[in-house]
Amino acid sequence: MVVLKAASPPTVPSVNKINNGYPCSNGTIKPLITPSPSSFINLDQGDPEVFRSYWRKKSEECTVVINGEDLMSYLSDTSNVCWFMLPELREAIQRLHRVVGNASVGMDKHIVVGTGSTQLFQAALFALSPSDSPNPINVVAASPYYSEYQDEVEILRSGLYRWGGDAREYDKNEAYIEVVTAPNNPCGSMRRGVANSSEAEGKVIHDFAYYWPQYTPITQQYDHDLMLFTFSKCTGHAGSRIGWAIVKDIEVAKKMTRFIQMNSIGVSKESQIRVAKIIGVICDSYQEIGSSLDPDELFFEYSRRKLRERWEKLRAVVDKSNLFYLAKYPKAYCTFTNHTSESYPAFAWMKCKGSIEDCESYLRNLKVLVRGGKRFGVDQKYARISLLSSDDVFNEFLTRISNATRNIGNRS
Amino acid sequence: MVVLKAASPPTVPSVNKINNGYPCSNGTIKPLITPSPSSFINLDQGDPEVFRSYWRKKSEECTVVINGEDLMSYLSDTSNVCWFMLPELREAIQRLHRVVGNASVGMDKHIVVGTGSTQLFQAALFALSPSDSPNPINVVAASPYYSEYQDEVEILRSGLYRWGGDAREYDKNEAYIEVVTAPNNPCGSMRRGVANSSEAEGKVIHDFAYYWPQYTPITQQYDHDLMLFTFSKCTGHAGSRIGWAIVKDIEVAKKMTRFIQMNSIGVSKESQIRVAKIIGVICDSYQEIGSSLDPDELFFEYSRRKLRERWEKLRAVVDKSNLFYLAKYPKAYCTFTNHTSESYPAFAWMKCKGSIEDCESYLRNLKVLVRGGKRFGVDQKYARISLLSSDDVFNEFLTRISNATRNIGNRS
Repeated sequence: MVVLKAASPPTVPSVNKINNGYPCSNGTIKPLITPSPSSFINLDQGDPEVFRSYWRKKSEECTVVINGEDLMSYLSDTSNVCWFMLPELREAIQRLHRVVGNASVGMDKHIVVGTGSTQLFQAALFALSPSDSPNPINVVAASPYYSEYQDEVEILRSGLYRWGGDAREYDKNEAYIEVVTAPNNPCGSMRRGVANSSEAEGKVIHDFAYYWPQYTPITQQYDHDLMLFTFSKCTGHAGSRIGWAIVKDIEVAKKMTRFIQMNSIGVSKESQIRVAKIIGVICDSYQEIGSSLDPDELFFEYSRRKLRERWEKLRAVVDKSNLFYLAKYPKAYCTFTNHTSESYPAFAWMKCKGSIEDCESYLRNLKVLVRGGKRFGVDQKYARISLLSSDDVFNEFLTRISNATRNIGNRS
Repeated sequence: MVVLKAASPPTVPSVNKINNGYPCSNGTIKPLITPSPSSFINLDQGDPEVFRSYWRKKSEECTVVINGEDLMSYLSDTSNVCWFMLPELREAIQRLHRVVGNASVGMDKHIVVGTGSTQLFQAALFALSPSDSPNPINVVAASPYYSEYQDEVEILRSGLYRWGGDAREYDKNEAYIEVVTAPNNPCGSMRRGVANSSEAEGKVIHDFAYYWPQYTPITQQYDHDLMLFTFSKCTGHAGSRIGWAIVKDIEVAKKMTRFIQMNSIGVSKESQIRVAKIIGVICDSYQEIGSSLDPDELFFEYSRRKLRERWEKLRAVVDKSNLFYLAKYPKAYCTFTNHTSESYPAFAWMKCKGSIEDCESYLRNLKVLVRGGKRFGVDQKYARISLLSSDDVFNEFLTRISNATRNIGNRS
């Protein structure tokens, strides 16, 4: 929840500009400021506060201690393509994918670590763009697509690549790169590549930021050429800025590594060592003592329960309100849980009913900041609402929708 | 020192590809492998191993402990332009500059943190490039210039900026950005802007990576529009990937922040919190108990002594060898130490004498990897040799030059 007063106009419509009420400046837990009815609540960004309660319980188990002379060198493992990646992190990432079963990390794969998957997305664009072409390659994604892709592609007006728009409408006879986000951000559905230019050569980046068991059933172990993951959405440790790519072609992995070298000479080792530690704690709990534990002791069980409860509450409020449409997701068998279940996406992708033309503005009038459909390449009747906020913010959101419904009922 | 065998050709001419003998994979100290006469030693890159012995002594004092639920949010301080920078880090950086007196951090300045100063250099190019011009702005630097600038400018073939070559030869009547590195990498001399295009508008990025008391006398507190610093060269903690910019114009600071948001959605908080801690230890030692301490307890005293000793040894060997020229640096009064002293740059910038045409190749025959003059925009008679390696590697380097001298003497 947010420090903006009702009187001051919110000048911060873009991502990551409003604090959800956690000063979180020194890593210690500060008391939550309960959102007042006059304050804006921010469900625009996807800051993953919802998982913090789990990590508070695991606080000491996950502790890392770093001494003065530790982790000083630029170098980590010069025998590896990604020379700045700590071997502990590589091994932890491989172990995590083997435990979850969501992506293949066999001997034929190369892992490249990045400062979040955002940096790796750009490294992938660099690596997949032909270096000998006079024209930039087109980068496409099927709408609704992640709101930041276009800006990330266009920010430097690169001569290597350019934004090519909606993948479904791509009909140029020119090579392209398609970004496939699965489950999709914003709409939560699983995706496959759709660009279908009959003769043009297409390369695909699979952005699997949300392909973890709390969000969606793990239906298969993917084995694509270039897959991106981020720790931010896996466990909620967004402040660590750690992402990784799993890459088949060693030449692509080398070019991605080269990009990150030119971009930032590697990736924080403090973050790498901490992420390796936390992944170890997750995997230990499943592999060593998992079955005998209270399910709430297991991270993906705990986090799926939290999201399921939020979705159930949200659907109840939305059904009653008659103001919005909310997608249903097909049930599927999850190879990780060995159960059939629904998806519980990180975002609700809502469409306003009836005469409401602009979902973002409608919710802004309720002092709820969300991201409107236009940012995702579709109609403004749609909006994306983060379900990853703290409990207090989420519950305040439900209260505001319920109140709005009641007010409409009272007027009619 | 290096794991390459004499039989295997060194396939790694570029920066950061060879381990100096530290596996350093988990941050613990591994025993040094003493370089054998048949192994390559790597003085190409500037991995700052020389300061590790100091931090080993301060190991516990600098320890940071990070628990499971700490530092999870993307956000740090939404009241600040640079919303992902921890307030502790901002305050530590301001304190350090006040203690050292090398740069003004008054109320009119904005600090932007980056994943090393490499990311900030690119953020600065983005922020200083006109967004409304159809042509890219020219980026220039006076030769010899840092070997990576050109690649960093050209890597994405940006339509916003392009490499414009040697600043001294710049005579276009077009706007430009000049990068001034002071002290200069590779040659160690203090620099001012030199581009002098009579009517064209010029903006300057001051790269002050080496403007710290161990390398050069602090002669004034600089107050330029855009100044870059990096923790890697300040203390030797290169693995943390923390740099910062001090920026006068808030619009420039906002654009740099926007670039880093698009590039990596912020900067590792684990690294930020650790750097704040280590800066605190340095400043405490000067401010609270400084004058009563053994000088070797004070970081800049210790590190300057280490570099001075290396320069004295190197000059003695080089003078005897009659193979190389080595620049002399003017003495200057240092406002930090209150003494007049020489410069002790992080790199030796050597020029071969007589018939040796290619300094890099000559040293490669001695199994010493260095970076040749062409990479810095000048003649191949020059080469840059890192003086920041471990003691063992540095001493082996001196031995090899001495032996080469003796062999020449024996043949003549």
